[in-house]
Amino acid sequence: MRGTILYGAGDVRFEDRPDPVIIEPTDAIIRTVATCVCGSDLWPYRGIDQLGGPRAYGHEYVGIVEEVGGQVSTLRPGQFVVGGFYASDGTCPHCRAGFQFSCVNSTGFDGCQSEFIRIPQADGTLFATPDQPDDDLIPSLLALSDVMSTGWHAAVTAGVSPGSTVAVVGDGAVGLSAVLAARELGADRIIAMSRHESRQKLATEFGATDIVADRGDDGVAAIMDLTGGIGADAVCEAVGTAESMTQAASSVRPGGMVGVVGVPHGVELPVPETFFRNVGVKGGPASVPQYLPDLLDRVLTRKIEPGKVFDLELPLKQVADAYAAMDERRAIKALLRP
Amino acid sequence: MRGTILYGAGDVRFEDRPDPVIIEPTDAIIRTVATCVCGSDLWPYRGIDQLGGPRAYGHEYVGIVEEVGGQVSTLRPGQFVVGGFYASDGTCPHCRAGFQFSCVNSTGFDGCQSEFIRIPQADGTLFATPDQPDDDLIPSLLALSDVMSTGWHAAVTAGVSPGSTVAVVGDGAVGLSAVLAARELGADRIIAMSRHESRQKLATEFGATDIVADRGDDGVAAIMDLTGGIGADAVCEAVGTAESMTQAASSVRPGGMVGVVGVPHGVELPVPETFFRNVGVKGGPASVPQYLPDLLDRVLTRKIEPGKVFDLELPLKQVADAYAAMDERRAIKALLRP
Repeated sequence: MRGTILYGAGDVRFEDRPDPVIIEPTDAIIRTVATCVCGSDLWPYRGIDQLGGPRAYGHEYVGIVEEVGGQVSTLRPGQFVVGGFYASDGTCPHCRAGFQFSCVNSTGFDGCQSEFIRIPQADGTLFATPDQPDDDLIPSLLALSDVMSTGWHAAVTAGVSPGSTVAVVGDGAVGLSAVLAARELGADRIIAMSRHESRQKLATEFGATDIVADRGDDGVAAIMDLTGGIGADAVCEAVGTAESMTQAASSVRPGGMVGVVGVPHGVELPVPETFFRNVGVKGGPASVPQYLPDLLDRVLTRKIEPGKVFDLELPLKQVADAYAAMDERRAIKALLRP
Repeated sequence: MRGTILYGAGDVRFEDRPDPVIIEPTDAIIRTVATCVCGSDLWPYRGIDQLGGPRAYGHEYVGIVEEVGGQVSTLRPGQFVVGGFYASDGTCPHCRAGFQFSCVNSTGFDGCQSEFIRIPQADGTLFATPDQPDDDLIPSLLALSDVMSTGWHAAVTAGVSPGSTVAVVGDGAVGLSAVLAARELGADRIIAMSRHESRQKLATEFGATDIVADRGDDGVAAIMDLTGGIGADAVCEAVGTAESMTQAASSVRPGGMVGVVGVPHGVELPVPETFFRNVGVKGGPASVPQYLPDLLDRVLTRKIEPGKVFDLELPLKQVADAYAAMDERRAIKALLRP
């Protein structure tokens, strides 16, 4: 089969790789129907994260089950499946508590930007749809693999509840998904921080009631202005830099929560500042299997269309173009089909 | 009247000061019945916090109302009152949300280690008991002014709920109060981290089911051992150093919360570490007026005896001895009576 290898900064190649095979009896092999490039893939692509050698890349996917290991009980070949961006068994104490990223049998599986994928812990990781979904649902189903579940995690972790005022820092695909999540969770007012017209437009489509284009102190001042000097009840942080974190923590009201899903890069939380305002910070890799049943239902009933974050679709073999388009911010998020 | 002035590191004096008078119509003047030394008073006493000149000290008190300003409606002279360690009006958006430390009219009032005290925003700050309380209740009522409310805040913020496993980092009066709070909030298992016999004993009296004397990595390993490798559901942090914060964040289970009440000194939260375990951190100055009605009831019905944290009682004029005893860890907490 062919798949994506990231060789180093700016060097993405689509090339021959060995066909994946069942290794553990809890594995499944799936044939990729769609995959995509994640904002977090850009960290090594930009040379900010070091790779330490060529590496198969990608962790988002939907596909058809080709083969299952002998201990897989909930799946059978031919089913259409969505799965999270890491493997988890669904049965350990951390999975049962709803924090599957900390599964005692958790593994990642970089290499999903390829024609076939081996998924470990298939029973805990993959969720089958009742039928083969309509083709126009593929982008939204793919979005559940990471970006929409991650936006949902931000909103849940920030404590978004009916009637609340929410600010979202970050207008990438995750930030936009957090806007959609906040709307679904009943927020009354959703302030999206964005300075890009196409992203502002999608934020509004997803439920943003206000757009703030300012950043830093001006951005915080704008949010204070919009909230009568109080601050947002909940803030979703979907960038991962020290600047975005400070902006998020300063925009939330005293006693409020910041839900963090931007993978932190060089972030030092200003504890004394958050402390004296009783601001809480929580977050991390999303609990995808926790949210998938609910989110699958919302997509399959066409209640939400998170796939709108994909504004570029390319054949998988053009994966290098997809990375470049996202790196140059020509695309919010690129979908790839084999 | 006479009161306490902190002149600098190690230099506490009890001397003549002007009698406080009503300045704002929302003020009350109270005659001190009991006051005490706070762990946070030791930061400047030890020269770690800089004072910038002599300063009247102390922020914990119970007393009798002497006089009220023209706009005070809920109090009258002669009532016995307990109040929080800062003034708050009880009516602004932050007060109504339960985060009174961020009251738009909030002020501190250092200087409570004195014979009389002016309390601003008296209606929002002071709570009267139905009758004059029995003398043996005075220590427990005084504890509500800060230390017990702060321990309660740690437990509430950490999300302690019935059946949960809680670890408490810090065996000062606040940490011990957090143990008591965790018991009252229904925790099944309470692990107190303490290496001092007298504090271990009080922790056990307050409801600790396990004592861990180790610190740092060994302390974390001990907690993991006691919880089957899972970690505590909730951790209360009552020290405020980088070491204690790291210990707290490492002792909580994935997805759990650390409730922070130790005033942070040089703390940088290791965001990448907490992030990948979905560990949340929240806390700050306690919402005393939020908790006081409930806690007053628990003390007056003798359900809890938080005053046990006072293991030294001195005349107020010996305030310098009280600071020294706490600094040298000869006393957990010193109560002072005029």
